[in-house]
Amino acid sequence: MKIVVLKFGGTSVGTIKRIKKVAKIIVSYVKKKYKVIVVSSAMSGITNELVKKSQRISDTFNPSEYDVLVSSGEQAACALIAGRLNHIGYKSRSWMGWQIPILTEGDHKVSKINQIKKNKIKSYLKSGGIPIVAGFQGINLSQRITTLGRGGSDLTAIIIAKFFAAQKCVIYTDVEGVMTTDPRIYKKAKKIKIISYEEMLEMASLGSKVMQSNSIQDARLNRINIDVKSSFVKKNGTLITKRKNIVNNKIITGISSTKNDAKVTLVGVKDKPGIAASIFKPLSKNYINVDMVVQNISADGNETDLTFTIKSEDVKKTKKLLKQNRKIKFKNLIIDKGVSKVSIIGVGMITTPGVTYRMFQALSKRNINILVISTSEIKISVLISKKHVVKAISALHKEFKLDK
Amino acid sequence: MKIVVLKFGGTSVGTIKRIKKVAKIIVSYVKKKYKVIVVSSAMSGITNELVKKSQRISDTFNPSEYDVLVSSGEQAACALIAGRLNHIGYKSRSWMGWQIPILTEGDHKVSKINQIKKNKIKSYLKSGGIPIVAGFQGINLSQRITTLGRGGSDLTAIIIAKFFAAQKCVIYTDVEGVMTTDPRIYKKAKKIKIISYEEMLEMASLGSKVMQSNSIQDARLNRINIDVKSSFVKKNGTLITKRKNIVNNKIITGISSTKNDAKVTLVGVKDKPGIAASIFKPLSKNYINVDMVVQNISADGNETDLTFTIKSEDVKKTKKLLKQNRKIKFKNLIIDKGVSKVSIIGVGMITTPGVTYRMFQALSKRNINILVISTSEIKISVLISKKHVVKAISALHKEFKLDK
Repeated sequence: MKIVVLKFGGTSVGTIKRIKKVAKIIVSYVKKKYKVIVVSSAMSGITNELVKKSQRISDTFNPSEYDVLVSSGEQAACALIAGRLNHIGYKSRSWMGWQIPILTEGDHKVSKINQIKKNKIKSYLKSGGIPIVAGFQGINLSQRITTLGRGGSDLTAIIIAKFFAAQKCVIYTDVEGVMTTDPRIYKKAKKIKIISYEEMLEMASLGSKVMQSNSIQDARLNRINIDVKSSFVKKNGTLITKRKNIVNNKIITGISSTKNDAKVTLVGVKDKPGIAASIFKPLSKNYINVDMVVQNISADGNETDLTFTIKSEDVKKTKKLLKQNRKIKFKNLIIDKGVSKVSIIGVGMITTPGVTYRMFQALSKRNINILVISTSEIKISVLISKKHVVKAISALHKEFKLDK
Repeated sequence: MKIVVLKFGGTSVGTIKRIKKVAKIIVSYVKKKYKVIVVSSAMSGITNELVKKSQRISDTFNPSEYDVLVSSGEQAACALIAGRLNHIGYKSRSWMGWQIPILTEGDHKVSKINQIKKNKIKSYLKSGGIPIVAGFQGINLSQRITTLGRGGSDLTAIIIAKFFAAQKCVIYTDVEGVMTTDPRIYKKAKKIKIISYEEMLEMASLGSKVMQSNSIQDARLNRINIDVKSSFVKKNGTLITKRKNIVNNKIITGISSTKNDAKVTLVGVKDKPGIAASIFKPLSKNYINVDMVVQNISADGNETDLTFTIKSEDVKKTKKLLKQNRKIKFKNLIIDKGVSKVSIIGVGMITTPGVTYRMFQALSKRNINILVISTSEIKISVLISKKHVVKAISALHKEFKLDK
């Protein structure tokens, strides 16, 4: 069987008109002789409405009931898609997680799929039916409804693609694909035609909201090619695949930026072995994610300045934890929320020397001061003043020829 | 186990505030040492929204997907109730039809419960939990979600009360109970404290919307006492029970009226054996419900006038069918939509002579002309001009001392 998995996001099924459009997209694959498995999210807005209700019922709403509550959204959307396919003459039905079943493990709200029973869906496909599978949901060993957490419907689609050895997994969404940078920040952003899992992971963790990191990671581990495209316009999207499949003369693939960082500087820290650990351990214990770190060399080996970045929402908690921390001594604590991290991402930089230099030069030419630097194999990030972000992205987009 | 089944209708769980109130009502029974099984409808408005969506997808929306779609409403409501009970410190969880399971048979949208597996709910009750069961839904042998049709959540509650041999089944709704007559028509309407299944069936089929006929019928067959009361105000409601339990000196229990009737008169029908069947068979085949029928005696045994009532919405279809009907001949067809059926209902009339006479006299005193009469063991109905309905109800309410 030539199987394709089509996943539709909340905005793609956000109105009745759009659901009708989605039915047409599904049919276009049927006409190409694919056996189609559809995975759907809830209609956009519905999940948020349900979540708000739960919050008004309790600020600590029971996670297992939360899963029962929010999974009802996907149930309704799937019934509507199947109903539309029936209306236009195709055999189709909805499949809830418990009906297949999709077996999950782990805690409620953040469960993980560990098995999908294939026989029912397989025989339904063989009978010529189009199964519409509720994304985001499954059941655990106690027969309770579970959900997979954010981006859960993508995960459902990817794991189904794996279990059914699908030839394709297409994620239909409200954007045309993955862009070289955020088009709201830089208008000349271009659609990326092909991107590796690794680059996509960096893009996702750095703010590209097309897909969640865990979904990309699952696709990477299972070697599932993901096609991200728009359900609104008929255009090629972005193919997310393994590095080997990419023949690309571009050094970098995309540029990302963050809005929500804060720079924390501890001035005059007593410099002794283990001091960094003493500082960061209590933060980590309190779920505060420390991102970029730089420690100035102390001339006399006695005192040093330590700078790191955190999310802005963690500033208050961080301040408190640092001041409570009896294991460290420092003269001053400076916090700057007016910063932004700009990153260039690309597997091309592995084999191309001088990328860092070109990045720094492009920024310095525009008088953009670099506050902190961090690098990985396929990514270089710099912390700059927030007011320079647009200028920086524009400079880098041109420098690395992403405009073309 | 001293079990009580509490059913909450859509308006009773229509807002978050009301769901919190419902949780308090449930707790009040727990404090009285009852083992409580809750059955809930969807939040009011939700089911209608879902139905509207289905209609916009298709004017012949697939019934099995319809059931998947609308049953999601009860799922959400049950999760919210259970979540609220958890929040205030009680062990509770939602139970969908497929989790218990509630097994149904028959067509989608109008399925009937034929079995409820008791073991899971029983052990949950024993463990001190409060099960919140989704009303209106079940599953069939193919593991598809089914629904029970209008009033389905009442049915779920009644059948659960039967299977679990509950001591009580309380239907919480947005009215204080069953009224002697529609208070929107007659302000002095009083709440009925106790009413027999049979009287309640007549009230329901004649327009009292507190419960659907099929639910009352199921309660009657299974001898389940039903307490109908308001979830908004703390007052005694109406007990629906078997006749033997009722010690009542009232001759009649309630008065109902219809708004939506039409009177059809065939003038000058050729009077021959089987003529009535020839007229009514095609109507019945087309699902047109003929209610009151009166045939004038023809003096010469040759021609007669035949009058009957139907629902106003069936007038067009009825006209067409009568004119197409080659088996009958008539001189004229007169249709009057300005009529209303007023009925008095009461088991008391079985043992009290002269009720019919008193009814007719009370109406004639107010110059209300009776167009058609029909009677049953516990009901007398008269067709009158629509404009006289309020006057008629007021007269009868006084005549039979229902004001007190």
